Amino acid sequence: MKVTILQSNIAKVLGTTSRVVGSRTTLPVLSNILIKAEKGKIKFSATDLEVGITTGTIGKVDEEGEITLPAKLLSDFVMNNKDESIEIKTEGTAAELKSSHFEAKIQGIAAEEFPTIPEVPNAEPIIIDKSLFVESLKKVAVAPATDETRPVLAGIYMVIDDDNLTLAATDSYRLAEKKIKLKSKFASVKMIVPSRTINEVLRILSGKSDAEIKIISADSQISFLIGDTHIASRLIEGSYPNYVNIIPASSKITVKTKHSELVSAVKMSSLFAKDTANNNVKMMVGKSDLSILSAASQAGSAKSKIEAEVSGGELGISFNARYILDFLNVISDDKVTLQFNDGTTAGVFRSEKDPDYVYIIMPLKLES
Amino acid sequence: MKVTILQSNIAKVLGTTSRVVGSRTTLPVLSNILIKAEKGKIKFSATDLEVGITTGTIGKVDEEGEITLPAKLLSDFVMNNKDESIEIKTEGTAAELKSSHFEAKIQGIAAEEFPTIPEVPNAEPIIIDKSLFVESLKKVAVAPATDETRPVLAGIYMVIDDDNLTLAATDSYRLAEKKIKLKSKFASVKMIVPSRTINEVLRILSGKSDAEIKIISADSQISFLIGDTHIASRLIEGSYPNYVNIIPASSKITVKTKHSELVSAVKMSSLFAKDTANNNVKMMVGKSDLSILSAASQAGSAKSKIEAEVSGGELGISFNARYILDFLNVISDDKVTLQFNDGTTAGVFRSEKDPDYVYIIMPLKLES
Repeated sequence: MKVTILQSNIAKVLGTTSRVVGSRTTLPVLSNILIKAEKGKIKFSATDLEVGITTGTIGKVDEEGEITLPAKLLSDFVMNNKDESIEIKTEGTAAELKSSHFEAKIQGIAAEEFPTIPEVPNAEPIIIDKSLFVESLKKVAVAPATDETRPVLAGIYMVIDDDNLTLAATDSYRLAEKKIKLKSKFASVKMIVPSRTINEVLRILSGKSDAEIKIISADSQISFLIGDTHIASRLIEGSYPNYVNIIPASSKITVKTKHSELVSAVKMSSLFAKDTANNNVKMMVGKSDLSILSAASQAGSAKSKIEAEVSGGELGISFNARYILDFLNVISDDKVTLQFNDGTTAGVFRSEKDPDYVYIIMPLKLES
Repeated sequence: MKVTILQSNIAKVLGTTSRVVGSRTTLPVLSNILIKAEKGKIKFSATDLEVGITTGTIGKVDEEGEITLPAKLLSDFVMNNKDESIEIKTEGTAAELKSSHFEAKIQGIAAEEFPTIPEVPNAEPIIIDKSLFVESLKKVAVAPATDETRPVLAGIYMVIDDDNLTLAATDSYRLAEKKIKLKSKFASVKMIVPSRTINEVLRILSGKSDAEIKIISADSQISFLIGDTHIASRLIEGSYPNYVNIIPASSKITVKTKHSELVSAVKMSSLFAKDTANNNVKMMVGKSDLSILSAASQAGSAKSKIEAEVSGGELGISFNARYILDFLNVISDDKVTLQFNDGTTAGVFRSEKDPDYVYIIMPLKLES
């Protein structure tokens, strides 16, 4: 293989691919990026066996071929290089890199040892507006379980039904659900996408100017297509819990408060809650205010009081402070709405701007 | 004690003091900040037993007294607090903190358990222009030893002789020396200041607008006074090596090159040098260019070539890349001058802008 690529173009494709590379992997080739030159097109691929990314760039192809090179060393060489273009020429399983000021020889691994990244399935794609998809994914991506005790909970549940897309995630302590109206109808499908994959999709989308994303699923695989970048991932097998019953149908007490003030109040009390199990803070809904108390710990205790519009009565209820902050971090409202029935049933957290989003937190046992 | 202080003022004094606090300390009171209210003045102090910092702020003193409070929790409470002022009231060894939205009770430790920070010695201060002192300290603070094998090398050597101040540091592999002309004559003194102290002084000076710094030393202690902030430190005992003989009196070969190009070239080759002991890179001085080669390692090798004005002949010499980058990072010249005699004696690195600064690196053994 012999190719010449603009430094800025290699930097871009390495930025897209190199994060997927496993750093503590037992299979050395997974630390490498696959570079493949074929029919005037140069493709860069990386995979950690769960998620695979392939993206293309233009360049001069003098000789077709392929090789895998260590992602870290290749990225360091390219990012530190301010020359206009870089030539990559293979010599067995090594590559010579040349630009006007710099030369390097990097030892690689034969392309044959690189795992196959699944092709894009030959099926009808679901087309979604990119910025709506990103905004929606972020709102649910805070909620999946981070451990693998129940594998299905470590994913984002995606349901397509006609022109409705529902995204949901829960770690069984809190739940986030977001509904999206699509521009046209698509075949019904239910998928559980690993949250690791969703985080990669979000990262890559944030650097792309494309207006749309295409999603294609088949045979327990899912593909996300953004321009000429393809993210392929396995789906999580199993059936997602029927979470809809957890969302309270009605609420007695409604509390409206300023977003920024609630953030400060919860943060402040959670500083003192760190010692206690579950990062426990207690909300006291008053007649026209909301107090956040930290459970007293050895280090001390704190109390924050903010103004609130309250209807339906007073209440005391305890939550994990981190779950409240996760919700507050993903919405951009000036005001937020909290809904409760009593101190032992789920609290409902809502964004006024986005009525199609709901966030539920299970209360902690009230301390006596 | 009962005091009320503006939030912005507490934030400022905690910023100055709280970095000195030991986090993994076996003496719990060292994790605390001492707050002392006396005669309408409020003082905050922190110490790790080597360096002690005391700084003052204004506030309303309703009741004199003192207490120590955990630096981390106190800082978190103050930094997250956007209210205008905070009241601190002691109750035994605890303190109640109150502002318009927040209340906290923080458990502290009695002030009597806090170590004494030495008073400012009653001697004539040396007065130095602040920005000149900062710029000069930075240029030598890269060179002291980071281990304690030879305690004197873990410090910055400061020599006052009439109106001359000399700063020097060496870890025995490289040496930095900077001379400063003072505005008046002072009594002669030689001191070795722990580099930990110098780093604190630099950090604190960077946030201060004062034009001058005062230095007072007595009884193997040194005090730095900046406005109403006092940094007290022990001095390192022992005699500093007679380093002057290490600086080559003359050089056969002179190389002038662009600062930015040398930075890129050394960085690039050092990427590949990481595997090799000592971060070894080889400089090849040509007729009108300078090449930087990495020693070939398992991962690969690199070569960078930049233009240079060379006089006195060609040469090959090996250095630890990090030592070269340390020099390049502290100077702000467009061009740098390198001087050599042969491949086995010290290389001299100079800034054109600052003829009073010299940086020496001992070469590594050339590989055959």
